[in-house]
Amino acid sequence: MEQLTRRKTREIKIGKVRIGGKFPIAVQSMTKTDTRDTCSTINEIKKLEEVGCEIVRVAIPDEVAAKNLKNIKKEISIPLVGDIHFNYKLALMAIDSGVDKIRINPGNIGEEYKIIEILKAAKSAKIPIRIGINSGSLEKYIYKKRHESSIEVAKKMVSKALSFIRLFEKNKFFDIVLSLKASDTLTTINAYRLLAEKCNYPFHIGITEAGTLLPGTIKSSIGIGILLSEGIGDTIRVSLASSPLNEVRVGYEILKTLKLRKRGVDLIVCPTCGRCEIDIFKIAEEIEKNTLHITKPLKLAVMGCSVNGPGEAKEADLGLAGGKKLGIIFKFGKIIKKVREEDLIKEFLKELRKIY
Amino acid sequence: MEQLTRRKTREIKIGKVRIGGKFPIAVQSMTKTDTRDTCSTINEIKKLEEVGCEIVRVAIPDEVAAKNLKNIKKEISIPLVGDIHFNYKLALMAIDSGVDKIRINPGNIGEEYKIIEILKAAKSAKIPIRIGINSGSLEKYIYKKRHESSIEVAKKMVSKALSFIRLFEKNKFFDIVLSLKASDTLTTINAYRLLAEKCNYPFHIGITEAGTLLPGTIKSSIGIGILLSEGIGDTIRVSLASSPLNEVRVGYEILKTLKLRKRGVDLIVCPTCGRCEIDIFKIAEEIEKNTLHITKPLKLAVMGCSVNGPGEAKEADLGLAGGKKLGIIFKFGKIIKKVREEDLIKEFLKELRKIY
Repeated sequence: MEQLTRRKTREIKIGKVRIGGKFPIAVQSMTKTDTRDTCSTINEIKKLEEVGCEIVRVAIPDEVAAKNLKNIKKEISIPLVGDIHFNYKLALMAIDSGVDKIRINPGNIGEEYKIIEILKAAKSAKIPIRIGINSGSLEKYIYKKRHESSIEVAKKMVSKALSFIRLFEKNKFFDIVLSLKASDTLTTINAYRLLAEKCNYPFHIGITEAGTLLPGTIKSSIGIGILLSEGIGDTIRVSLASSPLNEVRVGYEILKTLKLRKRGVDLIVCPTCGRCEIDIFKIAEEIEKNTLHITKPLKLAVMGCSVNGPGEAKEADLGLAGGKKLGIIFKFGKIIKKVREEDLIKEFLKELRKIY
Repeated sequence: MEQLTRRKTREIKIGKVRIGGKFPIAVQSMTKTDTRDTCSTINEIKKLEEVGCEIVRVAIPDEVAAKNLKNIKKEISIPLVGDIHFNYKLALMAIDSGVDKIRINPGNIGEEYKIIEILKAAKSAKIPIRIGINSGSLEKYIYKKRHESSIEVAKKMVSKALSFIRLFEKNKFFDIVLSLKASDTLTTINAYRLLAEKCNYPFHIGITEAGTLLPGTIKSSIGIGILLSEGIGDTIRVSLASSPLNEVRVGYEILKTLKLRKRGVDLIVCPTCGRCEIDIFKIAEEIEKNTLHITKPLKLAVMGCSVNGPGEAKEADLGLAGGKKLGIIFKFGKIIKKVREEDLIKEFLKELRKIY
């Protein structure tokens, strides 16, 4: 699994970012501000850029929002994606405003000629379109009854996606990214697995409406994690009822866990038990808080006792193994100092500053 | 994947709980209190029981702790597991104190006769033993150099596990549970996958020293999630540098996501975007806080707008779809009322109380 084989996908250009093929799996998010509020939206996107967001999507509920994309785009550095539902004219306006990609759910755009208008405009602007199937927004087409099995719903989502792909291809539009999100994790996994066998367009993956920070992170980690481990997924978005900065943080943690991207600190911490004689939680929390801004890949270990402590601390770039009211600091596998508990955080951070 | 095929494993009895075979995947945790402190340890275990912990482990660093197990066991309702390192006499004392299972890492117990003494005592007490291989505590045997590939480390862990299994079997001891934890998620996954092909003993799975709450939850969800999705795993422990109650909560969320256990609320929440006109985060947070104690399986949806809102709200047992400063409440797929934003939380919780 270390040399995980990625599904072979077509390369797609979203502004300056490329996805698909052998390009790194891009981390994206979506603003939670009102897109008509230029200042708040730009501020949120700038914060997202700082934490490593590589593509950002904004909702386009009306004409004011569609026109405002011009003002937003001027001030930001990452590709901007317009999210359109129901009204194809908003898609045309968004393209006119210079977005780098649009996302539509063709199922709620209406008559075919409207979809074809969007395809023409995107083609002449040379931007890709994501076909974003979402189990919640396609219930008229997808759901026959409540509580269908996840495999049944997945099959319906895939058949819907394939019909849209055929329409796009019939109109000579191949610059396609696909997503098949459901709030149910197994449905989502099944849908992507099925579609992966049927086309080579790159996939935007995620669990939709996954929930609040902790449960939403769990569903997203399992769903996105399983798909990525099977080589499926070219860009990811973690959907959380939480700050979009958390979506990006969780996204990178998922990719780091699977060794698909490197970014910032990997913090190994013992969960502590009756054996622990120093306050590991406090030390780990302080170190976490002080390392969130680091982008250089570093492995740190904060361990409580002599059972696994020295082993893990030696494996880390910088490690700490606790004893009775003291701790031993390891750097690149070698002991460098023994420190009293009260000085541990300070000394550890001092050593850390020397290596990042 | 909905009818996921579990690996065929031997059934093992841990006090009143059975794992392996077709028994539900049990959720366990470990106390973080000093095992010599009877009152704190019992209190922590009672809180763990309340949130659904099914097996609890305590560290036994010395004789006082080993003897104190008697006092702890008297007051608790779930099986008690003793965790022993280095000193085989502590294992004998723990068995004498009436533990329901012991966990040892035979690699740090010393000479073979000491391990055999433990096997004899466990056999006569009719309790199982977990062979707990941990990459961090076996570095002398397992690691040849720093930064070996995850597949290499996994192979060494498995070969060590197999040698201990042979020793146990030679001594006619078959009441075995196995774990092969590493702080690296891919190493852990690879190790369990390899060992799954070589024996039919049940597995205790988890990522060791996974980290603080959020990153630790991500690594655990991916590692445990991937293994469970392949049918591997008979009991799980999420190792977090956080309250053990969070370990149990995360454990159940993982099992619920994969539809392997049912317990409490599944809260679908839209992540919100520029389309949202009510304060979804506040509503979701309040609902989350007020539903953590519910054990009846219920699907709730809190959605912001008309794109996916009505679809998801209809699928839920109780759902809420926001509009302009108001929300519509759905119950079992039908609209039951339209409520002003300021009354939404109260009305939603009122309806919820009627169904749990």
